[in-house]
Amino acid sequence: MSRQRSWWGWGWEDAALTPAQTGKLAAALSARFGGADLAVHAPPDLAAVDLPAPRVAPPSAVDGMCSTSTHDRASHTYGKSYRDVVRAFHGDLTRPPDVVAFPRDEGEVVALLDWCAGAGIAAIPYGGGSSVVGGVEAALVDDTYAGVVTIDLTGLDRVLEVDTVSRAARIQGGALGPVLEEQLRPHGYTLRHFPQSFEFSTLGGWLATRSGGHYASVYTHIDDLVESIRMVTPAGVSESRRLPGSGAGPSPDRLALGSEGTLGVITEAWMRVQDRVRFKASAGVRFSAYDDGVEATRAVAQSGLFPTNCRLLDPTEAMVAADVDDGSALLVLGFESADHPVDAWIARAVELCRDHGGVVPEVRSSATDEAVGTWRNSFLRAPYGRDALVSMAVIVETFETACTWSQFGDLHRNVIATVERALQEICGDGWVTCRFTHVYPDGPAPYFSVTAPGRWGSELSMWAEIKAAASEALLAHGGTITHHHAVGRDHRPWYDRQRPDPFATALRAAKHALDPAAVMNPGVLIDP
Amino acid sequence: MSRQRSWWGWGWEDAALTPAQTGKLAAALSARFGGADLAVHAPPDLAAVDLPAPRVAPPSAVDGMCSTSTHDRASHTYGKSYRDVVRAFHGDLTRPPDVVAFPRDEGEVVALLDWCAGAGIAAIPYGGGSSVVGGVEAALVDDTYAGVVTIDLTGLDRVLEVDTVSRAARIQGGALGPVLEEQLRPHGYTLRHFPQSFEFSTLGGWLATRSGGHYASVYTHIDDLVESIRMVTPAGVSESRRLPGSGAGPSPDRLALGSEGTLGVITEAWMRVQDRVRFKASAGVRFSAYDDGVEATRAVAQSGLFPTNCRLLDPTEAMVAADVDDGSALLVLGFESADHPVDAWIARAVELCRDHGGVVPEVRSSATDEAVGTWRNSFLRAPYGRDALVSMAVIVETFETACTWSQFGDLHRNVIATVERALQEICGDGWVTCRFTHVYPDGPAPYFSVTAPGRWGSELSMWAEIKAAASEALLAHGGTITHHHAVGRDHRPWYDRQRPDPFATALRAAKHALDPAAVMNPGVLIDP
Repeated sequence: MSRQRSWWGWGWEDAALTPAQTGKLAAALSARFGGADLAVHAPPDLAAVDLPAPRVAPPSAVDGMCSTSTHDRASHTYGKSYRDVVRAFHGDLTRPPDVVAFPRDEGEVVALLDWCAGAGIAAIPYGGGSSVVGGVEAALVDDTYAGVVTIDLTGLDRVLEVDTVSRAARIQGGALGPVLEEQLRPHGYTLRHFPQSFEFSTLGGWLATRSGGHYASVYTHIDDLVESIRMVTPAGVSESRRLPGSGAGPSPDRLALGSEGTLGVITEAWMRVQDRVRFKASAGVRFSAYDDGVEATRAVAQSGLFPTNCRLLDPTEAMVAADVDDGSALLVLGFESADHPVDAWIARAVELCRDHGGVVPEVRSSATDEAVGTWRNSFLRAPYGRDALVSMAVIVETFETACTWSQFGDLHRNVIATVERALQEICGDGWVTCRFTHVYPDGPAPYFSVTAPGRWGSELSMWAEIKAAASEALLAHGGTITHHHAVGRDHRPWYDRQRPDPFATALRAAKHALDPAAVMNPGVLIDP
Repeated sequence: MSRQRSWWGWGWEDAALTPAQTGKLAAALSARFGGADLAVHAPPDLAAVDLPAPRVAPPSAVDGMCSTSTHDRASHTYGKSYRDVVRAFHGDLTRPPDVVAFPRDEGEVVALLDWCAGAGIAAIPYGGGSSVVGGVEAALVDDTYAGVVTIDLTGLDRVLEVDTVSRAARIQGGALGPVLEEQLRPHGYTLRHFPQSFEFSTLGGWLATRSGGHYASVYTHIDDLVESIRMVTPAGVSESRRLPGSGAGPSPDRLALGSEGTLGVITEAWMRVQDRVRFKASAGVRFSAYDDGVEATRAVAQSGLFPTNCRLLDPTEAMVAADVDDGSALLVLGFESADHPVDAWIARAVELCRDHGGVVPEVRSSATDEAVGTWRNSFLRAPYGRDALVSMAVIVETFETACTWSQFGDLHRNVIATVERALQEICGDGWVTCRFTHVYPDGPAPYFSVTAPGRWGSELSMWAEIKAAASEALLAHGGTITHHHAVGRDHRPWYDRQRPDPFATALRAAKHALDPAAVMNPGVLIDP
């Protein structure tokens, strides 16, 4: 029997926390929140949910790939942000997509877009559905459209071709992380792109949202692993030439990257794949002063050593996530290679850390990838924990940014202070932590995690207030509204202020040229 | 007394080859070409040149920064391709710009574009004028325009701000290479971007053409050193936020990068600068079989070692450029760092080379940058030699591309065979050589140099035929029409075939939105 995916929460139903695990989590958190009532609510029953009737009916050309079943429509109503899971858990499904389409090849994608463009129906490329920014949400499409078709692309899931000389692979846009890795493995390759959504996000979704990946430096975004992109737009199929580098005009790929389904559907890409890792070295560096940790991380980021992992946890996150109980910040430092031992690399990085007051109990060097695997599994399990937290009305969400090193001190202090104040006022308790997910020579990508007791039924408005305060603080202190979570519909108010006006003008014109009926993911990134 | 720049050739008049040096060069080449007649012609006399009267007169708002002098118009008529120098040397100046403008600040750039847009005058951002692809050529602007104003931007030449924490600098778009380096030096910084045009090209020009720089890997294009860009478009000033990385929609900077003056004028950019190099190591690796050299270079490019220099010279280039007389290919391998010795890096790269049959007589390791300086000076002197070659009707030009490793063997064989055949048929003699300027995990950027005896007065048609044959071969075997020389007007026939049609549609729409009067560098990249 095939595994079932939860229609309201993150992942496989059989991988969810057990009632016993959930109860234990509630008890532990209740203690942390001074005995707060964290009653665990039962998950929603789909049989009790009444969906509005579909407003449109697929014509015969696309009927075979379309579904209007309650399960398909309900499970494709939202992405997977905290907000999304809360709404689904509460059975709030007032505006599902009218139709969910499951194309199996590019021709079917073309047929779907033809139908939508001709009939004035909004088309939402759903990828794997893991958007955390309202990027796949039918409820946010306005009523000028005749209906909404959500396009689940996971049927386009094959690795079509492997070039072992150039170390590249042609992969369909709907392949989920584990699905494409499984097909690359027999060739000795891996894409080595592991966002937290890995299990339920697709290559096309990663490209369309400029997903942040495994590498802490150099190849931070999926953008850097792209050789060429094939995208179906309402104006025709666009395919860039396979090139390792080019200077021929503005890059066509860079227009598709980050387009979030507003220009078309990415059906294939030639991706730069990696040989499987053979050598690794890692160290946990403690800093009694957080500022020293920041300085050390900056030195490593500016050294040209290019660490694979360079994750500075502030003292709160070090405590919550890594059991560091002495108030230290923790820098998780790692190097890896498929080609050579990396001892010289980590030795110099550790030396830089010690120069800045870092304490390094041990440098681990190994010829296998097991420790990373363990960490990664725990990282990928996190969204399952969130489903359980939602059931007990705990507010649990993340937001992220990037800024220059010169602005980081102010940004960190102000964002933490703003969110802590909001948590006290709105939730009466809770904490916010910060780690770097990626580092650049000119600045870090800080990632913030919020955990707080919510009030059952009021979680959404509580979180909305916290998120708005955080977003204002990010923008006021030189950050971007997103480093790798995308813009979607939720980040629009801040993205619109951050983006240069003439660029908005150019992007709107480009969209109008490729999508004259304005049916592609309306409301995301730009207004028509 | 300030130095004079040649109005027809490459550089400073006082740096040109002396008559004695030119004579010696002619004798040496004549011997190589079987005693061909390489009579040296006298340089053109500007006093004998009759320019057409300007068709437009600057209004008072811009008059103070505009020139219609013969010297200014003549010296801004062409870029600096072989074709351009030949035409100027022959006194062919039938279509100079009507006006040359020298703005001194951004406000003056705005005023110039306002004038042009209002009066239907083509505006050509000239940068430093080193285009080799017809990117700054007034003669190629069609007669539907009232006139042509060429905008020399070298008056915007200052480093405005330095951020020593984030290691970044805000630099005006018109700063020439040596001018910006001189201003960065007191801060201990360098941009470390050294295209062959370094002396007479500007930061804005590098950005607008996606210039290829010093680093053989990772940061190959100027694109990779950009933090934010400020660009004056006819529709307003666009300025992106200073961010080390972002995933907020398609990158605004990536639309400006490669736009070649068709969307606006780049007036400023925040650039990632570098600490000055302290450690370097280099080796020359010989391969008796070229294919082994290619395999070794691929192994290094895929190793994650990120060499600064990784320049494989094919046997002909090794002979011509590096006096290798045994038929070997030569890989010039170099690593550098401002932070740490790079011995472990080059040791592994050399090991990879030896695994592929490479012979490494010596690895040089040093703590200074002198050897690179020597090589670089000779590299930067090359265009002066070209001026002398033009005076003796020698055809001397380069073209470049990038392709995947899997396609490189075919591409190299076919391009070399095609050009050699064309040289025999058209010139009766000559040679073509190939080196890699940059390498990627998935492919190299091969750079071809052609030298052949031309016939005085027929050089242009001879070269046009060779160039067309070479361009067809590049495209037929998976290459790009340019890796870092840009598209301009000269590469249009091949660029138009290489570029995805829907992207052309989008780019045209974006241009129309930013430049509704279609006055920005018409004919470059796209038709209105």
